Amino acid sequence: MTALRDPIRLIPALFLTAIALGTLLLWLPISTADGTQTAFLTALFTSTSAVAVTGLIVVDTATYWSPFGQGVILFLFQIGGFGIMTAASLFGLMAGRGFGLRDRIATQVERSRLEVGDARSVLKLVLAITLIVEAALAAILTGRFMLSYNFPFGEALWHGTFHAISAFNNAGFSSFSDSVMGFQSDAVILLPIMLAVVLTALGFPVMQDLRHHGVSWRRWTLHTKITVSGTAGLLLGGFLAILAMEWANPDTLGSMSVGAKILNAAFHSVMPRTAGFNSLDVGAFHDETLMANYFLMFIGGGSAGTAGGIKITTFAVLLAVVLSEVLRRKDADVFGRRFGHAVERQALTVVVLAGSLIFGATTYLAMITPLPFEDLLFESISAFSTVGLSTGVTAELPPAGQIVIIALMFIGRVGTITVATALALGGEPRPFRYPEENPIVG
Amino acid sequence: MTALRDPIRLIPALFLTAIALGTLLLWLPISTADGTQTAFLTALFTSTSAVAVTGLIVVDTATYWSPFGQGVILFLFQIGGFGIMTAASLFGLMAGRGFGLRDRIATQVERSRLEVGDARSVLKLVLAITLIVEAALAAILTGRFMLSYNFPFGEALWHGTFHAISAFNNAGFSSFSDSVMGFQSDAVILLPIMLAVVLTALGFPVMQDLRHHGVSWRRWTLHTKITVSGTAGLLLGGFLAILAMEWANPDTLGSMSVGAKILNAAFHSVMPRTAGFNSLDVGAFHDETLMANYFLMFIGGGSAGTAGGIKITTFAVLLAVVLSEVLRRKDADVFGRRFGHAVERQALTVVVLAGSLIFGATTYLAMITPLPFEDLLFESISAFSTVGLSTGVTAELPPAGQIVIIALMFIGRVGTITVATALALGGEPRPFRYPEENPIVG
Ligand SMILES: [K+]
Ligand SMILES: [K+]
Repeated sequence: MTALRDPIRLIPALFLTAIALGTLLLWLPISTADGTQTAFLTALFTSTSAVAVTGLIVVDTATYWSPFGQGVILFLFQIGGFGIMTAASLFGLMAGRGFGLRDRIATQVERSRLEVGDARSVLKLVLAITLIVEAALAAILTGRFMLSYNFPFGEALWHGTFHAISAFNNAGFSSFSDSVMGFQSDAVILLPIMLAVVLTALGFPVMQDLRHHGVSWRRWTLHTKITVSGTAGLLLGGFLAILAMEWANPDTLGSMSVGAKILNAAFHSVMPRTAGFNSLDVGAFHDETLMANYFLMFIGGGSAGTAGGIKITTFAVLLAVVLSEVLRRKDADVFGRRFGHAVERQALTVVVLAGSLIFGATTYLAMITPLPFEDLLFESISAFSTVGLSTGVTAELPPAGQIVIIALMFIGRVGTITVATALALGGEPRPFRYPEENPIVG
Repeated sequence: MTALRDPIRLIPALFLTAIALGTLLLWLPISTADGTQTAFLTALFTSTSAVAVTGLIVVDTATYWSPFGQGVILFLFQIGGFGIMTAASLFGLMAGRGFGLRDRIATQVERSRLEVGDARSVLKLVLAITLIVEAALAAILTGRFMLSYNFPFGEALWHGTFHAISAFNNAGFSSFSDSVMGFQSDAVILLPIMLAVVLTALGFPVMQDLRHHGVSWRRWTLHTKITVSGTAGLLLGGFLAILAMEWANPDTLGSMSVGAKILNAAFHSVMPRTAGFNSLDVGAFHDETLMANYFLMFIGGGSAGTAGGIKITTFAVLLAVVLSEVLRRKDADVFGRRFGHAVERQALTVVVLAGSLIFGATTYLAMITPLPFEDLLFESISAFSTVGLSTGVTAELPPAGQIVIIALMFIGRVGTITVATALALGGEPRPFRYPEENPIVG
C-alpha cells in the first residue's frame, strides 16, 4: 500500500520543488527591471501564484520584473498548468487500472475514458492540446496587437504569447500593468481569450470526452453532461447578473456602448472560473457584484483541469441532494442517473473544507489589517479558487497576510488535487462498524 | 395521507394567524406611546419579529410603543416560543407513533423519548418548564432592579418579567432602549439571563432527556450528547474569540476591568445562540468579531426548541462526515454511534438552503441600500437564525429591505420547523430508481 500512496506525496513534492526553484530564480537580481534583489517573500508569493496558476500579484508583472523575470513567471505557470492536467489525468488512469480501487472511483469517468489509453498517450494528448490551443490563440493576439495597435512584431509576439499561455492555463497573469483593461472594447482580443478559458476550464476528462464523442449529448458521460450544462448555466447567470448590477456604474460599464457593456459583462462572467484577467476595474464593482463574483469564484470550473474552486460537479451534487430532499425523494438524480452515497459525502467534504479555509483566512486577515471586509473575503476566495482577480488589496497586505494568501493558493491548487487523489485511492477498511443512531437535525 | 400532511400546513397557518393578529393590535393607535397610528410595515415587522422570537426592531421597543403595545409584543413572543416548543414536541410524538413513519425518524430521539408520554403530558411539561423558569428568572431580575437600582416595585416587576420571558423564549426583545447595556458590569442581572438562555437553547428533547436522566452521560441519547457537548464547545470557543478580539477595543471591552471583560465576553458568547440581548455595542465590534458572530449565529442552538440557526446537531453531522472522509473511513462516527445516510443528506440540505437564503438576501440588500456589506450580512444571518442582534442598520433599511428581513425571520423560524416535520413524515416512494453514475468532484 505504501507505494500506492506515493502519488499523494509526489504531487505536493513536485509543486513545492517548482515553487522553490521559481522563488530562487525570481530572487536573482537579473529578474527585476531595475536589477535589485527582490524581497524573499515577494519572490515566494509570485512563484506560488504562478505555479498554482492563480495570478494574484504583489508587484506589477509588467514593470517590476525584467524580461527574464517575466519569462520565469511564464515558464512557472506553464509547467504548473501542465503539471495539474497531467497529474489529474494520470492518477485518474492509475485509479481506473484497479490498484487501490474504491467504489467511488470505479464508476467515475476516468475509468471508461482513460482505460483506453496509457500514460504516454495521456501525456501526448495533454501536450498536443496545449500546443495547438496556445499557438492558435497566440497567433490571433499577436496579429491583432500588430495590425490594430501598431506593436512592433517582437513586442506583439511577446504579449500575444504571454496572454495565450496565461489564458490556456487559467493563470491570470498579464504582461500589461492593467491586465486587459486597455482592450475592453476590442472583441478580437477578448473573445478568443474567453473561448480558450471556457474550453480549458472544463477540465481534462471533459476535453477528452469532447474529442472522442464531439457534441453528442447522448454519448457523453454524466461528468461531461454536468460540467458542460453547469458551465453554460453559470456563464449565462453570471453574464446577466454582472450586466444588470454594473449597467449604470460609471466606473465600470456605465459609460460604455451597449455592445461594449455586453462584451465586458460576458468577459467577466468567464473570468471568475478561474482565469483571472480583468477588462473592468474589479475594485469599482458594487458590493452585490462582488457577491455574485464570490459565488462564481467559489464554484470555479471543471474537475481535473487548471480551473480552481470547489468545481461545477461538486456544486451540482449538492444541488441535486437538496432538490431530492425537498421533493422527498430517496435518490439525488441528474440526467437519468443517481449519485452514490460516497460522492455525496465527498462533495459535502469539499465544500465544508473550502468554506472553512476561506472563512478562517478572512477572519485572520480582518484581524491583522484595517482593509474592508468585502475586499478581504474577495481576496481569500480568489486565492483559494486560484482565480487571481482582486479588488486591489493584494499589495497592501502585511507579510503575515501575504503568507496566508500563499497558503490558500497552495492548498487551493495542490491540496485539493492531492486530497481528490487520496480519496480516489481509498483507505483501509475498518474491521467493525458502530451501531447507527441519528440526532434530530435542522 | 392527506390528513397526515395537515400538520405541515397547520404550523405556518397558526404562525401566520398569530402574526396577523399581532400586526392588527400593534397597528391600533393605543399601541404607540404617542397614540398615533403606526405604519403598517412597522407593525408587521415587529409582530413577525416577536412571533418568530427574533428581536430585530425598526422602532425602539421602550419608547415607541405604549405599555399596551409592549404587552402585545410580550404576549406575541411568549405564544411564539410556546408554539414552537409544543409543535416540535407534538410532531415528534406523532411521527414516533408510526403514521407516516420513515427510517429517518424511526431512530430519532423523539421515538424513544416521546412515546412514553402523550400529547397532554407534553403540553403540561412544556407549560411547567416555561412557568417555573420564567417565574424564577423574573423574581431574581425584579429583586435586583428594586434593591440595586431603586426601581419602584411595579417598574421592577415589569422589566424583570419582560426580560425573563424574553430570555426564556430566546426572543431578544428588551424593555430598555439600550437592551442590557446598562447592566454590563452586573453579574446578578447577566448571569441568570445567560443560564436561562443556555438551558432553553438546548431544545425540548434535550431538556426532557435531562429531566429524565439528569447529568448522566451514559444514559443520554446521542442527540443530547451532541447538543450538550457542542454547546459547551461553542460557548468556550466563542468566549475566547470575543475576549481576545475585543480585549483592547475602546468601544466594547477596552475600558472595562478584567472581571467585566470576562463577564461580557461570556454574555456575548451566549447571545448569538440565539437570544439576541446585547450588553456591548455590536455595531462597534471589529470585523473579525463580526465574523465569529456570523459563525455562532449561523449554527445557533439545539433542535426542536426556541433557538434558531442550522442547529448544533446539523453542524456536528457535517463535521463528522468531513472528518470521516479526511480519515478515509466509510462511516461518520460520533460517541460510538454512526450516522445514517439520510441524516447526512438532511444536514447538507439544511446548510445549503440556509446559506443560499442568507447569501441571496444579503446580495439583494446590497443592491437596494448603500449600507456596509458586513452589516447587511450580519443582519441577514441574525434574521434567518432568529438571533435579533444587529449592528444597528435595521431601522435604516428601506421598505423592500424590511420585507426581506420579515421573510427571513419567518422562513428561519416557521419554514425550518415545517420542513423538518415534512421530512420526518416522509414522502411517497417512487416505483423505480435510476442507475448509479458518479461525476468527479472537487
Ligand atoms: K487564475
Ligand atoms: K432571538
